[in-house]
Amino acid sequence: MSQINIKKLAAELGLSTSTVSRAFRNNSDINPQTKERILKVAEELGYSPNIYASNLRESKSRTIAIIIPEFGNNFFSQAIKGIEQQARTNNYHTLIYVTEDDINQEAAFIRALCNGRVEGVIMSASGEGLKHSHLEMLNEKHIPMVFFDRYYEDVEATCVTGNDYESSYQATKHLIESGCQKIAYLVINKRISIGKIRMQGYLDALKDAGLPADEELVVECTNDKEDIYRTVKNAFGHLKPDGALASVERLAIACLRFCQDEDINIPEDFKLICFSCIEIADVLNPPLSTVKQPAFEMGARAAEVLFEALTSKKTATRKELILLPSSIMIRKSTEK
Amino acid sequence: MSQINIKKLAAELGLSTSTVSRAFRNNSDINPQTKERILKVAEELGYSPNIYASNLRESKSRTIAIIIPEFGNNFFSQAIKGIEQQARTNNYHTLIYVTEDDINQEAAFIRALCNGRVEGVIMSASGEGLKHSHLEMLNEKHIPMVFFDRYYEDVEATCVTGNDYESSYQATKHLIESGCQKIAYLVINKRISIGKIRMQGYLDALKDAGLPADEELVVECTNDKEDIYRTVKNAFGHLKPDGALASVERLAIACLRFCQDEDINIPEDFKLICFSCIEIADVLNPPLSTVKQPAFEMGARAAEVLFEALTSKKTATRKELILLPSSIMIRKSTEK
Repeated sequence: MSQINIKKLAAELGLSTSTVSRAFRNNSDINPQTKERILKVAEELGYSPNIYASNLRESKSRTIAIIIPEFGNNFFSQAIKGIEQQARTNNYHTLIYVTEDDINQEAAFIRALCNGRVEGVIMSASGEGLKHSHLEMLNEKHIPMVFFDRYYEDVEATCVTGNDYESSYQATKHLIESGCQKIAYLVINKRISIGKIRMQGYLDALKDAGLPADEELVVECTNDKEDIYRTVKNAFGHLKPDGALASVERLAIACLRFCQDEDINIPEDFKLICFSCIEIADVLNPPLSTVKQPAFEMGARAAEVLFEALTSKKTATRKELILLPSSIMIRKSTEK
Repeated sequence: MSQINIKKLAAELGLSTSTVSRAFRNNSDINPQTKERILKVAEELGYSPNIYASNLRESKSRTIAIIIPEFGNNFFSQAIKGIEQQARTNNYHTLIYVTEDDINQEAAFIRALCNGRVEGVIMSASGEGLKHSHLEMLNEKHIPMVFFDRYYEDVEATCVTGNDYESSYQATKHLIESGCQKIAYLVINKRISIGKIRMQGYLDALKDAGLPADEELVVECTNDKEDIYRTVKNAFGHLKPDGALASVERLAIACLRFCQDEDINIPEDFKLICFSCIEIADVLNPPLSTVKQPAFEMGARAAEVLFEALTSKKTATRKELILLPSSIMIRKSTEK
């Protein structure tokens, strides 16, 4: 048989094309037995309706987009896993976009999504402190959005993130109780929401313990692997900290490398804890104390909020901050 | 201004809707200056053509799909990163699907993609040894596919994977040269292509060194974390190996945990090497020797093959096995 189309299928069934077409639509008023017969013959002949034709009719793509600043680290991998599972359960397709932390790329993705390609967007923000007018287009096109992890304070949307202030405060307190007197805070960018909030928890814990909250102890790095190592090395050289809270995993890994290279004993000479969702912290040298982030749960919850909005035909999510608790996992790297 | 559509835009420009419509199509015969003027006014008024309407006309979605058996481990994260970068460079959208190693789920995804949603598919296979008739639909719909990592031998398509036989042979030889006499091979499933090929490299290296290639030394686990630990524990109990080659990272991590729990010294009492693309093998306890898989490169290369096929309007990729070399990274866990 030559290429099957709706006309040939209708002829085969002895029905009109509009009746056949209705069988492929949900909520149509077609007789269930006729519908079943049409779908059965369609399957036998290998006919499936063109997705774009039916989307045009229903203006539904059953697709969501995930936009993230970077890819390949544990945090975003687990968060995407959480989102993808929810999408699969809801029978939605998932597009994925990586900005490489470039707000112009984020804006270009948003523009490319606004023409009917997706019904909703889940995003971790790339351009905090910059202009966010590109997101207005989502509002105009009635496409709901949910932030996770990193968000824009000036944008009206739900954000699912960690209870970072509290976790950072507790992690710092734990270092103090383990005997640290001079604790460094290592951060990629202290101006973005997450870096800033975690810094505040750290500074307040120092203050409450009567320790000097010295700005110099806040060590900022770029996101480049070699530069991180160099910055850690310099910080050890002139600050001589006896402990550190790392705001992201790769900064803690650089500390482990440096201490290994320089024969600095952890936890005897230096104690270390970091925000991370690494699953093998227990077999690191030494086993690493972590503020375990609920990355999978964050992704899943963000997707839940989005699908709730889509199901109830909302055109946007409401401005709300949902904080999921992290847990402090104490291991050898912060032992007394 | 009320919602902009192509009629209003055409009226604003004093042009026909068909002229305006042509401006949004590639390869159209419109005057370049007119096209530029139309796009400029369209942008000012916030008009973008409905993606599904234009896809219907051009039957192009500029979208590819990635289908993988599992998500969240280093290997697939890095491979997807490689694919996504290529897609971005080629200005394509990327859909992602996770089968959880279920061939029925794989078949359902393939069916859902065949109605115009994607132009091509990149897949790591979930159902080796089973029927693969669901992939015939891709052929019928002229949708090219490329495998990476895991593939079906009976399916006509390009596969990009690692030089696993050679790597496995070399890794086993390295263990023998480091003094091991009783080397276990740890594998999730010894019947799938990768598990099987790696096993063959291991068995041949033993044979060539005059060591008995004992079937009992092949230890098979399920994919469940606790079951893996139990299986490793049992294997140590009755086999008493002095070395092991792990075919996937999580099996090596279980060995590290067991040796840590039981105070077995690595590398003195037991040596360990594994296939992995972990980036922090150097800060594990002890630093872990690895067969470093080019995961990112595998993803990127698979995408290159697919985009070559799409650019040259091929309806399928040719049956070919592209083997990318791994590198053996020797660290403390296999020291003499």
